[in-house]
Amino acid sequence: MAGESKNLAVLLRKKGDLEVVEVEKPSPGENEVLLAIDSVGICGTDVHFWTHGEIGDFIVKAPMILGHESSGVVAALGKGVSTLKVGDRVAIEPSVPCRKCDYCKGGRYNLCPDIVCGSTPPVHGSLANYYCHAADFCYKLPDHVSFEEGALLEPLSVGVHACRRSGVTLGSKLLVCGAGPIGLVSLLTAKAMGAAQVIITDIDQGRLDVGKQIGADFTVLADSEDGREMAKKIESTLGCMPDISIECSGVPSSIQTGIYATRSGGVFALVGLGPSDVTLPIVNAAVREVDIIGILRYANCFPTALAMIASGKVDVKPLVTHRFTLAKSLDAFETARTGAGGAIKVMIKVADK
Amino acid sequence: MAGESKNLAVLLRKKGDLEVVEVEKPSPGENEVLLAIDSVGICGTDVHFWTHGEIGDFIVKAPMILGHESSGVVAALGKGVSTLKVGDRVAIEPSVPCRKCDYCKGGRYNLCPDIVCGSTPPVHGSLANYYCHAADFCYKLPDHVSFEEGALLEPLSVGVHACRRSGVTLGSKLLVCGAGPIGLVSLLTAKAMGAAQVIITDIDQGRLDVGKQIGADFTVLADSEDGREMAKKIESTLGCMPDISIECSGVPSSIQTGIYATRSGGVFALVGLGPSDVTLPIVNAAVREVDIIGILRYANCFPTALAMIASGKVDVKPLVTHRFTLAKSLDAFETARTGAGGAIKVMIKVADK
Amino acid sequence: MAGESKNLAVLLRKKGDLEVVEVEKPSPGENEVLLAIDSVGICGTDVHFWTHGEIGDFIVKAPMILGHESSGVVAALGKGVSTLKVGDRVAIEPSVPCRKCDYCKGGRYNLCPDIVCGSTPPVHGSLANYYCHAADFCYKLPDHVSFEEGALLEPLSVGVHACRRSGVTLGSKLLVCGAGPIGLVSLLTAKAMGAAQVIITDIDQGRLDVGKQIGADFTVLADSEDGREMAKKIESTLGCMPDISIECSGVPSSIQTGIYATRSGGVFALVGLGPSDVTLPIVNAAVREVDIIGILRYANCFPTALAMIASGKVDVKPLVTHRFTLAKSLDAFETARTGAGGAIKVMIKVADK
Amino acid sequence: MAGESKNLAVLLRKKGDLEVVEVEKPSPGENEVLLAIDSVGICGTDVHFWTHGEIGDFIVKAPMILGHESSGVVAALGKGVSTLKVGDRVAIEPSVPCRKCDYCKGGRYNLCPDIVCGSTPPVHGSLANYYCHAADFCYKLPDHVSFEEGALLEPLSVGVHACRRSGVTLGSKLLVCGAGPIGLVSLLTAKAMGAAQVIITDIDQGRLDVGKQIGADFTVLADSEDGREMAKKIESTLGCMPDISIECSGVPSSIQTGIYATRSGGVFALVGLGPSDVTLPIVNAAVREVDIIGILRYANCFPTALAMIASGKVDVKPLVTHRFTLAKSLDAFETARTGAGGAIKVMIKVADK
Repeated sequence: MAGESKNLAVLLRKKGDLEVVEVEKPSPGENEVLLAIDSVGICGTDVHFWTHGEIGDFIVKAPMILGHESSGVVAALGKGVSTLKVGDRVAIEPSVPCRKCDYCKGGRYNLCPDIVCGSTPPVHGSLANYYCHAADFCYKLPDHVSFEEGALLEPLSVGVHACRRSGVTLGSKLLVCGAGPIGLVSLLTAKAMGAAQVIITDIDQGRLDVGKQIGADFTVLADSEDGREMAKKIESTLGCMPDISIECSGVPSSIQTGIYATRSGGVFALVGLGPSDVTLPIVNAAVREVDIIGILRYANCFPTALAMIASGKVDVKPLVTHRFTLAKSLDAFETARTGAGGAIKVMIKVADK
Repeated sequence: MAGESKNLAVLLRKKGDLEVVEVEKPSPGENEVLLAIDSVGICGTDVHFWTHGEIGDFIVKAPMILGHESSGVVAALGKGVSTLKVGDRVAIEPSVPCRKCDYCKGGRYNLCPDIVCGSTPPVHGSLANYYCHAADFCYKLPDHVSFEEGALLEPLSVGVHACRRSGVTLGSKLLVCGAGPIGLVSLLTAKAMGAAQVIITDIDQGRLDVGKQIGADFTVLADSEDGREMAKKIESTLGCMPDISIECSGVPSSIQTGIYATRSGGVFALVGLGPSDVTLPIVNAAVREVDIIGILRYANCFPTALAMIASGKVDVKPLVTHRFTLAKSLDAFETARTGAGGAIKVMIKVADK
Repeated sequence: MAGESKNLAVLLRKKGDLEVVEVEKPSPGENEVLLAIDSVGICGTDVHFWTHGEIGDFIVKAPMILGHESSGVVAALGKGVSTLKVGDRVAIEPSVPCRKCDYCKGGRYNLCPDIVCGSTPPVHGSLANYYCHAADFCYKLPDHVSFEEGALLEPLSVGVHACRRSGVTLGSKLLVCGAGPIGLVSLLTAKAMGAAQVIITDIDQGRLDVGKQIGADFTVLADSEDGREMAKKIESTLGCMPDISIECSGVPSSIQTGIYATRSGGVFALVGLGPSDVTLPIVNAAVREVDIIGILRYANCFPTALAMIASGKVDVKPLVTHRFTLAKSLDAFETARTGAGGAIKVMIKVADK
Repeated sequence: MAGESKNLAVLLRKKGDLEVVEVEKPSPGENEVLLAIDSVGICGTDVHFWTHGEIGDFIVKAPMILGHESSGVVAALGKGVSTLKVGDRVAIEPSVPCRKCDYCKGGRYNLCPDIVCGSTPPVHGSLANYYCHAADFCYKLPDHVSFEEGALLEPLSVGVHACRRSGVTLGSKLLVCGAGPIGLVSLLTAKAMGAAQVIITDIDQGRLDVGKQIGADFTVLADSEDGREMAKKIESTLGCMPDISIECSGVPSSIQTGIYATRSGGVFALVGLGPSDVTLPIVNAAVREVDIIGILRYANCFPTALAMIASGKVDVKPLVTHRFTLAKSLDAFETARTGAGGAIKVMIKVADK
């Protein structure tokens, strides 16, 4: 809790130009806390901003600190904070909404047009020794939940939001397309919500093996780009058409597969993002009342994700395959970029020397 | 109620070959009633089977009686019928499900794989003097509800199902794409459900005028195939983005318009069917949580549609623009096919000479 | 808009001790606006605090300004307000939640334990020339919506919340128990949401006549305390059991009536509050899956209520039976207390001399 | 599969008069199958009909075979059955609805007024060597699911229906009042649906121990009849107020406890039935939006319950504490009546000699 004297941060100056540099230590504003960061997972979007300098309309125009899957220790309190105290161990929900618009008042704050998202241009992220954040978007970790698990609440919340919006419930049969981090947290979440069986697909057998190991009932190698053919393979493997499909790859053929595969009256959720426009078998979906839904981040999911981990219903620890210190962040990003060594989630242990 | 001695029917022998012929008078089976048909509206699918001989997987391979928007009088009771009596005036819900599968037991009988649909090959429809039907799919009409209104319960039920699945509620702002019969019943239903404002689009100004006349707050001529541009026009006319869009044309550019136009967190419902595969701005929809849903017929909507008409909340009568006797059915179909004379709903008065 | 130089307010010093006095003109804080109040409706709770000095755990221990059904003109902007400007005509949603707790983030801010409610001890209300309020809980009125209609958004929002939670939808058959202001706004809302038929009960024939006049299909005089008997009378009058019952009287026999009357699988909503403990036919409700629900104020209802009034779907004007100036507020309260002259909603025109 | 030549049955002649007698072997009607029964669990209602001769409006007026928690083997097919074959091992959903009313069509067939319920007067149950039943209400058991587990699908389905209607989901904190068979299956179901923590109460420490053993996180002895006091004990043990309470005892003080204990905005489900009228803190529930709901049997729950058992998500086997042959059925009923030897679920192995 003593914390660092310096504040080192992983700064993206512009496309391709990433560096660990010392930056000014921030001060918490009203209703904020200063956090001594402990652990930060690297997200695919962090890597994409580094390699491409932009995602959709979000363009890196000024140097930006990366990182938004973080946990740490409260180091100081801003004015008005009464729910946390110095020394509390917390996980950070990185996007803070305006609290005033219809979306915020209505419980869908993830759709708030004025939401402020850490590590999305032009807002700094939390991959640094120190970081300030709204106190009510910091969630206190029980003693038996580790900082790494705390950092993993962020991707796990994506799985929670995807499964909730998809209506996963007791007895659901599920297809998860893509066995990367988001596919795997969706699998874990679905199982914890009572899904009877989950089948997972990927183009990489190694990832499928991880899926199997953490709970998938069936795996199917995505070795065809023909959606109807893949859908048949899924149905014959699972023994029926899945009620719900959660697409985590963004690949057009996988999207088509997911739509054809889903049982009439079911839900197809698009979580992975690829090309902006895709040709879809829209009449097939419409006349079978297969709803096509998407998700944007999550809302009201961190408390649930934390309850899952704290109660032992979900074990996210196997997702972390590689660990680096803050000083070695560039190696961490390179590992996340290439997926070398079967990398799934790469974690930066900021507090370690 | 005396009824006809003959049983004349509008028989589609094969693609393009339609005729009014005498057929055998059917006998009601167990739990069925024999109906002396009074009024039958012509649906676009009837016209399509006539002109194309098929819709998707449904192919006219044997002569089939058309018609499924019907009302009539109970002329005889099959074994076991206790809820109706001879002389009752009824509207007919034309598709009868198996009652045993998961979909039927779960309340979504429209998705029943074994449902039997009148006027869909190879099942005869009800455009005839006499027709037999499951008693519990015949709905008794109050005295003040006309046979024509009874026949219109069928398309109106499509509007009810579309609006229900879309979540139309008090204060909703709606976009309806396409001002044909289904667009218009969707408009009427949405207004009855409390929609605050409805904007309707079409490529035909005459249809827009009808939309305006029966309750649309705004109309926009669909004079561009650029979805983003049309979406902007809709937003500026309505004063905001619609919460819900109901697409009733099936035209790809209109589908794209509807997705771009819908407010984040809203619903886009695909009711009109066109090409089976369409290129969609799927990332735009997904990250704004605009759900893309379709509908298949309706389930549990006839009682609601009837309550709407009986209570005066909805007036469907303006939709009937043309009337023909059974003998003049070929003229009726020709009018429905061409839309001549501003035809919206063409009604065949079977009981008239 | 020039406004008053003085700030007169209706102050409740203690139980039974109400006075129009001059108080200090308040200054808007951050994100607040100063409002020159125009119209304030008197609510039953205002009267109850005056006559009893308390409601449940809320006890008048210090002088408190009454009034929370208000509209006015923005007279000054606090720091940070950008969504309103001086001169805007607005309706006021009187309770402002904490924006940080699970209830607020989840869209049910009415359940926020830290919500600040105007005219509930110890928080001042808005029955005064000037009043300060959170800008985002002030809703801009279109030009054609009057200040009185603006003030009526508050009780109308109770009706909206009650009907929404009860699941009123197209074709619903409804029972409303009690034809006071809340019963009447529930009736108006239900009709606007597509209810096919509404039956209303009261012990006062005059109130039933008002109910009939503004849209009730049937009225029944509540002339028996036997719940089963009254339920039978309701069923025979309506022609069926209602799907939903909204109880607005709080009288135990009326609550029992509502439960017995509601159709299996329906909803009984308790809106009116009476004795804290009531003997209920709980097995009858449970085994028929009649859900018993209550409401606390409203959440996310003002925009909907405003859309209803602005679009003409609901006409609340007939509810206002009496009008007084601010100077005559004690007469207004006396009228509201006795219900003399068939008083339903008593309105104080603060801006009038 | 050969089955018995005789058909012995447990017949309740009248209140208190129970006997194992030979009855005629039934023949399957259309769409029915003849079943050679294997296992039948004794339900509290079976015991109650034996000891009291009635439950509510259902009165034993003629001899009736008891039993409705049953599994067996298909011994013969009635006309029209294609989904099962002789030799199939099945679990039996004992109540068969009319399939024609609004409730049936709408997916809530448990509310069907014409439903036919085995072992409810005057309909015979299935505690016999042979029994006929609608084929589509027989669910085929996978090889690895035992007949006993098949028989337990019935009480488990009550838990599924209760948890579904209550909205149990990922992260829910639950209170279950009463650790009898229904309380225990509710506990098991809630855990399988993702409940983070479940606290269970009972007046019997032995039952609480069983609750703990099969997954309850906390237990509380119901040693006070003061609902507010018990609610505080529950809150302090759980660390927060439960989101949902499922009451399985029917005891008035336990109902009051459950209402006071439930978090604002939560759900209180009344599953256990006791006195028909109970005094409830209705204002406390209403203004905190704690919904009071009940359940009647279940609908669409057997497939889910079976999927849970088949996938290993739920283990119901510990619930069976005692087993008897059909010949010893009177001993079985006596054990079920007294609960001697810590009896939870008493199972009759009909197929054993």
